[in-house]
Amino acid sequence: MIDLVFAHPYPDRSRANRRLLEAVRDLSGVEVRSLYDRYPDFAIDVDAEQQALTRASVLVWQCPIYWYSVPALLKLWFDKVLAHGWAYGPGTRALKGKRCLWVATTGGGPEAYRQGGVHERPFADFIAPVEETALFCGMRWEAPLIVHSARVASDTDLEAAAAGYRDRLAALLALPGEEAHG
Amino acid sequence: MIDLVFAHPYPDRSRANRRLLEAVRDLSGVEVRSLYDRYPDFAIDVDAEQQALTRASVLVWQCPIYWYSVPALLKLWFDKVLAHGWAYGPGTRALKGKRCLWVATTGGGPEAYRQGGVHERPFADFIAPVEETALFCGMRWEAPLIVHSARVASDTDLEAAAAGYRDRLAALLALPGEEAHG
Repeated sequence: MIDLVFAHPYPDRSRANRRLLEAVRDLSGVEVRSLYDRYPDFAIDVDAEQQALTRASVLVWQCPIYWYSVPALLKLWFDKVLAHGWAYGPGTRALKGKRCLWVATTGGGPEAYRQGGVHERPFADFIAPVEETALFCGMRWEAPLIVHSARVASDTDLEAAAAGYRDRLAALLALPGEEAHG
Repeated sequence: MIDLVFAHPYPDRSRANRRLLEAVRDLSGVEVRSLYDRYPDFAIDVDAEQQALTRASVLVWQCPIYWYSVPALLKLWFDKVLAHGWAYGPGTRALKGKRCLWVATTGGGPEAYRQGGVHERPFADFIAPVEETALFCGMRWEAPLIVHSARVASDTDLEAAAAGYRDRLAALLALPGEEAHG
């Protein structure tokens, strides 16, 4: 089962994230939880979140990139849900061996993410904090799916990204249970 | 003037951050705003924050490291206060030329932040998102002050870090106004 945590503060204004989510939410075995719908006041139900993660073999974190990172509510989710004594620390196994896929959209195009571009660096330079968060909990890090130019991508490009996302999740769902659980 | 944004969710439990803050808060020209005191409900007063930044020539972001990044409320502060049309975007100059210093504490020691250490990478690998946030707003990025082993550092080491912090801020306060404003 895939636990898909969706974190967009303004989903109605999000063309790309909405389309991406539509492309996967009907897949059998995908459970979507929208953090900004569930916790508009930032009061995360840690127990409920941890229980949902326990049921899954794959975690997906889908969000727009804000300031080269995840939106604040997803950061709060990391800070609260991935707790010491549950997600990491001596004897903890809650997330061990689960796969983790980060799906993120950026306003800037690929050309913005290089030396001389407006963001000055390849996007890969911004991945380490999120990747290491997953690894520190003993998860297996999947190559992130980064969709650039979210606001200006052509319909064709957006459809291709959405189809690619669906294929990625379908492949993860097709993994044998033992293997997926590590 | 230095605008010091302090972001610790549990300051009473923070030995290192509290000591660091004590070392600088009486410096003339330093204004401290504690985000978790001001906004325990995460409802940031964006206008008040922007006005405080406008008055300063130097911004300091002081926080513990949570999941290789800033705590969630400081991330929300980035997301809300560093707004399009004010902090960045055509014609914006609100933060241009101001200096930005990130002061952060980690639980792990320096030996944790290398290949083979529990965090697998040098801490420098986690700096890019915060550094680029400052740079994208036109600020000048100062070398971050990272204090490792926050919970277990000896009193001597902690005093040395606190004195170093005070010296850094004193030097920034001593810069000529024009130069500090860029």
